[in-house]
Amino acid sequence: MKIALFAGDGIGPEIMEQARRVLDALNLPGIVVWEGDVGGAAYRRHGHPLPEETLQMARAADAILFGAVGDPECDNLERHLRPEQAILGLRSNLDLFANLRPATMYPGLEDMSALRPEIARQIDVLIVRELNGDVYFGEKAMRKLEDGRRQGYDFMSYAEDEVRRIAHVAFRAAQGRAEKGTGGKLCSVDKANVLETSQLWRDVVIETAAEYPEVELSHMYVDNAAMQLVKDPGQFDVVVTGNLFGDILSDQASMCVGSIGLLASAALGERQTEFGTFGLYEPIHGSAPDIAGKGLANPMAMILSLAMMLRHSLGREADADRIEAAVAKALQDGVLGGDLGGDAGTVEIGDAVLARL
Amino acid sequence: MKIALFAGDGIGPEIMEQARRVLDALNLPGIVVWEGDVGGAAYRRHGHPLPEETLQMARAADAILFGAVGDPECDNLERHLRPEQAILGLRSNLDLFANLRPATMYPGLEDMSALRPEIARQIDVLIVRELNGDVYFGEKAMRKLEDGRRQGYDFMSYAEDEVRRIAHVAFRAAQGRAEKGTGGKLCSVDKANVLETSQLWRDVVIETAAEYPEVELSHMYVDNAAMQLVKDPGQFDVVVTGNLFGDILSDQASMCVGSIGLLASAALGERQTEFGTFGLYEPIHGSAPDIAGKGLANPMAMILSLAMMLRHSLGREADADRIEAAVAKALQDGVLGGDLGGDAGTVEIGDAVLARL
Ligand SMILES: CC(C)[C@H](C(=O)O)[C@@H](O)C(=O)O
Ligand SMILES: CC(C)[C@H](C(=O)O)[C@@H](O)C(=O)O
Repeated sequence: MKIALFAGDGIGPEIMEQARRVLDALNLPGIVVWEGDVGGAAYRRHGHPLPEETLQMARAADAILFGAVGDPECDNLERHLRPEQAILGLRSNLDLFANLRPATMYPGLEDMSALRPEIARQIDVLIVRELNGDVYFGEKAMRKLEDGRRQGYDFMSYAEDEVRRIAHVAFRAAQGRAEKGTGGKLCSVDKANVLETSQLWRDVVIETAAEYPEVELSHMYVDNAAMQLVKDPGQFDVVVTGNLFGDILSDQASMCVGSIGLLASAALGERQTEFGTFGLYEPIHGSAPDIAGKGLANPMAMILSLAMMLRHSLGREADADRIEAAVAKALQDGVLGGDLGGDAGTVEIGDAVLARL
Repeated sequence: MKIALFAGDGIGPEIMEQARRVLDALNLPGIVVWEGDVGGAAYRRHGHPLPEETLQMARAADAILFGAVGDPECDNLERHLRPEQAILGLRSNLDLFANLRPATMYPGLEDMSALRPEIARQIDVLIVRELNGDVYFGEKAMRKLEDGRRQGYDFMSYAEDEVRRIAHVAFRAAQGRAEKGTGGKLCSVDKANVLETSQLWRDVVIETAAEYPEVELSHMYVDNAAMQLVKDPGQFDVVVTGNLFGDILSDQASMCVGSIGLLASAALGERQTEFGTFGLYEPIHGSAPDIAGKGLANPMAMILSLAMMLRHSLGREADADRIEAAVAKALQDGVLGGDLGGDAGTVEIGDAVLARL
């Protein structure tokens, strides 16, 4: 079992350290752990945010645990050298097209949400975000128009196979929830009243629906979805959407839960390893440069990303459950990071989770 | 004073009727009121959502009051015949590039918001959305790739002059709020870590800032902005953003206020009329086909759009104030539409506002 750890920038290294302690405590047989450089840290050391050796390590691994990238000091570099290119490059080079972003309310944390508790309590949504297409990876450039004006442009597009494969992931997730009795609805979010990219998206989702008669499919425009996620997030079960809208809505949904310091995500492709599906796991939050290096960051989302990795990529469901239970217990016991209005630091939270493993 | 009323689809006609009653009650001297067809209604009557005669009427008017467009029965028409093309066509043909979308909490309505009252109470944000560019108006099509796959695509772009003129509108608004002592901060929202369109946006906003030293400028990625609008909407004063992000964030912000049945918007260009700035005014909500024709729709956003029109385009500040005060009074007196958990119908709300004028 080969695991690659890419800590990255900002709070990445300190939260990764806590996830590492949890991983070590599990004492998994036959496990090999590699560490690689990504982001601004990699740029400083190797001149590139995603050095060739990191990419090779990623390809050779069974799963990747990713901290965060983003560094204000690198914002003026040429685009292909910026920290964000590390995560974008991994997603595209490794065909990790399916981003699973669950947002569920932790019992007892309803008061942390900006939403009223009776509304927040209802949140149990899985956002399935497409991760390899859309305006993220189309041709883009800064150019001079004929009349000398500067213009920035980005090409947005989806081809039918790109939509179909993510639609299948989402329908299967909704079907799984239907079978478990916890859901069975899929809401596809687009802007088909304005965008052709969205019209193709909607057409293909509708075509795919024929194979999943048990799933109740609906469609929503993205502006309305952003509204409904505030008004009544409990109405959603599984949401499927493109790369750009998924970026926005999943962050919004996670904040409805109260803190994005608690939310993990998986980026999966189609490749199967000996143990499960190859994937990359990362907290939804970013590198938080403002609190980096101060021991203040909440490592729970990072630790929960490790749990997701054990479940989806490594076939260690029981270990995943153990970790998730330990985090939930720590929260119930009032071990709250600054993001949740508490004062527990990074190491203290790591200790608390370890003690409850 | 020539005013064009375009009621449109769904609940458009019934809410427009109430705005018309309020307008008539003001008894403005020298006023001429025209009515024109737009949206699905216009398509049915004239074969086009924005008939030539409507466009000419719009050009000849000093201001336009717009209801709503959108009709599920028209969703399978070719794109250029869909109802939405009416509003998109008016915005682009009339150079209405600056969309002002204020979201302010009405005292006494804090409990209507899905946000906790102490958070909702803080909301007083003006979203300035660019309305003539971005992925809305770039080349777009559905095509077959060489290998036979269908692809939908849309070209996203901004040129520097397009960004500069909307940046000036936003900076001036922030400056105005600084002078009134109610604000002075401008937050520019983009996705410059991924999009070149956004990078140009950010560069030009920074260049423009030099002319407004009193305004405190910040930048935020759109995913973070969607989060912050839930977590702490009170942190925002004026927000400026592109067409697509503005569509999403303004709807989200309006729902934070409790109901989009209360929020009006203005779309302004540079053309000055005898009385003020030429503009189009519309509620932020859509055509709500599910409740259309039932007398259930809340006409307050429509009536408040009329007030915005009187202020910005017709130089009738006092009349605008009167209308806004009447609506606020009706709300305080508990005249609440279904969107606010009340049971007042469309005409009843119109009556209530009229009685308090
Ligand atoms: C860092 C950035 C490029 C990235 C994205 O936009 O996808 C992040 O916001 C995310 O959601 O993982
Ligand atoms: C109807 C639609 C084309 C429009 C838009 O996306 O601009 C609407 O959502 C709005 O915000 O005015």
